[in-house]
Amino acid sequence: MAINNTDKIYKSVSAQGVLTEQHDLRQYLTGLSTSFGYVLSDGDGTTFYTDPRYLEMAENVLAKTGIKVKLYEGSLEKLLKPYREIAIPLSRTLYNDWRKFADLNLKIVDSTQAFEAAMEIKEDEEIALIKKACDIADRAFVELLGRLKEGMSENELAAELEYLMRTYGASGTSFDTIVAFGENSSVPHHETGFRKLKYGDIILIDFGCKYGGYCSDCTRTFLFGDDGKHEEFKEAYKHVLAAHFAAKEQIVEGVKGRQADAFARDYLRNYNLDKYFTHSLGHGIGINIHERPFISPKSYEELKNNMVFSDEPGVYFAGKFGIRIEDTVMLEDGHTVSLTDSDKKLTVL
Amino acid sequence: MAINNTDKIYKSVSAQGVLTEQHDLRQYLTGLSTSFGYVLSDGDGTTFYTDPRYLEMAENVLAKTGIKVKLYEGSLEKLLKPYREIAIPLSRTLYNDWRKFADLNLKIVDSTQAFEAAMEIKEDEEIALIKKACDIADRAFVELLGRLKEGMSENELAAELEYLMRTYGASGTSFDTIVAFGENSSVPHHETGFRKLKYGDIILIDFGCKYGGYCSDCTRTFLFGDDGKHEEFKEAYKHVLAAHFAAKEQIVEGVKGRQADAFARDYLRNYNLDKYFTHSLGHGIGINIHERPFISPKSYEELKNNMVFSDEPGVYFAGKFGIRIEDTVMLEDGHTVSLTDSDKKLTVL
Repeated sequence: MAINNTDKIYKSVSAQGVLTEQHDLRQYLTGLSTSFGYVLSDGDGTTFYTDPRYLEMAENVLAKTGIKVKLYEGSLEKLLKPYREIAIPLSRTLYNDWRKFADLNLKIVDSTQAFEAAMEIKEDEEIALIKKACDIADRAFVELLGRLKEGMSENELAAELEYLMRTYGASGTSFDTIVAFGENSSVPHHETGFRKLKYGDIILIDFGCKYGGYCSDCTRTFLFGDDGKHEEFKEAYKHVLAAHFAAKEQIVEGVKGRQADAFARDYLRNYNLDKYFTHSLGHGIGINIHERPFISPKSYEELKNNMVFSDEPGVYFAGKFGIRIEDTVMLEDGHTVSLTDSDKKLTVL
Repeated sequence: MAINNTDKIYKSVSAQGVLTEQHDLRQYLTGLSTSFGYVLSDGDGTTFYTDPRYLEMAENVLAKTGIKVKLYEGSLEKLLKPYREIAIPLSRTLYNDWRKFADLNLKIVDSTQAFEAAMEIKEDEEIALIKKACDIADRAFVELLGRLKEGMSENELAAELEYLMRTYGASGTSFDTIVAFGENSSVPHHETGFRKLKYGDIILIDFGCKYGGYCSDCTRTFLFGDDGKHEEFKEAYKHVLAAHFAAKEQIVEGVKGRQADAFARDYLRNYNLDKYFTHSLGHGIGINIHERPFISPKSYEELKNNMVFSDEPGVYFAGKFGIRIEDTVMLEDGHTVSLTDSDKKLTVL
């Protein structure tokens, strides 16, 4: 797909030239995923400078976009000679790189805001890619449930799930898949390991994939058989699920991030569970798995149509168990719709 | 495994306190992989500050290392109040973060060199993890060869390979797996896609996995059947393989990165193939898939015992085909040994 978001950024940054080196921002501008390159826009248009490894591919892909492709000759000084003023994303620029620009006596303008404002409101093409990444995750999860066996390790389960996402078209995972069995579920970011699955175990899986450069993110918690010892878990599950829905139903256009977070947190407080909800409700999802908007008690940002983010309340009882229920959701026509949508009623396999 | 490299860094940086935020550097210091945290060392020892998601796990894992664990309270100013001087890795610090330290009127010392010098010489425990990551990659590749079928897509092949690495114990891939069929092999960093495998196709696979936080990296190029149209390919393959071995045999302790690169490049020049070798010979491998030492025409760094890096000459003929042959190798007792070591003689399936 031919993507050219360079105009959108160039027009909202007031600088003679706009230079972008960061992988994800370059991908946003051009649709290309490369490990090296500079995108440089000015009044005459945009050029992608890269090294010989990517020249052929870049020329083929960018031919339709109007973005020119040139070999980077190794000198920023030479590249920027025609400019007296250059915009870079300061919040994403390393100190040493900033130093280089400063040493060239260039006036530096910050392009961070322009990128953040543009990237958090998704275009139709971006939403289509995220939806596809979500559909693949859903489909893989449903297929996975039929493949779980007593004695398999967390790592083997992750292998199955990632295999399914790949074969359904994903280009990879959007983050390291978290699979936690039993008591491991009490660690919100458990490192998937070699714990083997036993009858009666809680299973928590936090997973997502990439499609066309865009991410999905989903968490499900369920039981591998009911050994009759899970009353406390079932009670908490009911409330976490209700908190998940409370947020989804009450988040409408114009709500601030902190209000959205509070919809779930206040609900859990009614059951004295809020103190076990040790992270924020959600984060934006796009090219990056964590991006704007952030849905946390500290966020004053207003949620808007075509923002995509996670709704993921969770509770964690150290050494015992944890529960997290997460969908990738989107604000559409003022209301929140789920993009991942596999069953969230408590599943007992 | 209990890892504590904090002393090694603290002693080689002359500063009252050493503060580290970067994911890979924190992992090097503590062995822990977390998405958030600060490691702070001073004359009294080291403390890992993190958020509630990681507290339980960090306390369990770090108990044996002597590293204390505390909740990060959200204020760098408060954390750094006792210090007049702090070391941070300037080359890895974002401009905005540097700004924060500068605003606290702290004297800033650069810890970059200390990390680079320490991390490029691997300890026995680190080598053991890299070897395991290499063994998993080798084993998965050999198993994969029996699973290739006409009509499967690049993406399906990647799914099989990643599944095998996972089930053999990898925690994930060390980078996005590159699978290129036929003419796609001419793009050094081809994006794995939906091209289907045909009889007579060249297959190029660049892959690696992570084990215990450490990476492996390997590339193989081979034929899916011989349709009799590959004389040019076979001739070039022979030379790339010889260039790979030329480097491996001639790289000894004390050789500079640029000399190492030249062993392969000069060999290819004898056959007028050097102009198609459009990238550098190799890069260091450890916690990061690309780190010191760099083996390129621009590198004046001396190679030393217990450095781990790639030996990966490649030639690319735009629109036709490409060849890359890569092992993860290590300097041991003055000489280079292969850590990935599946067969490199031209394979015809």
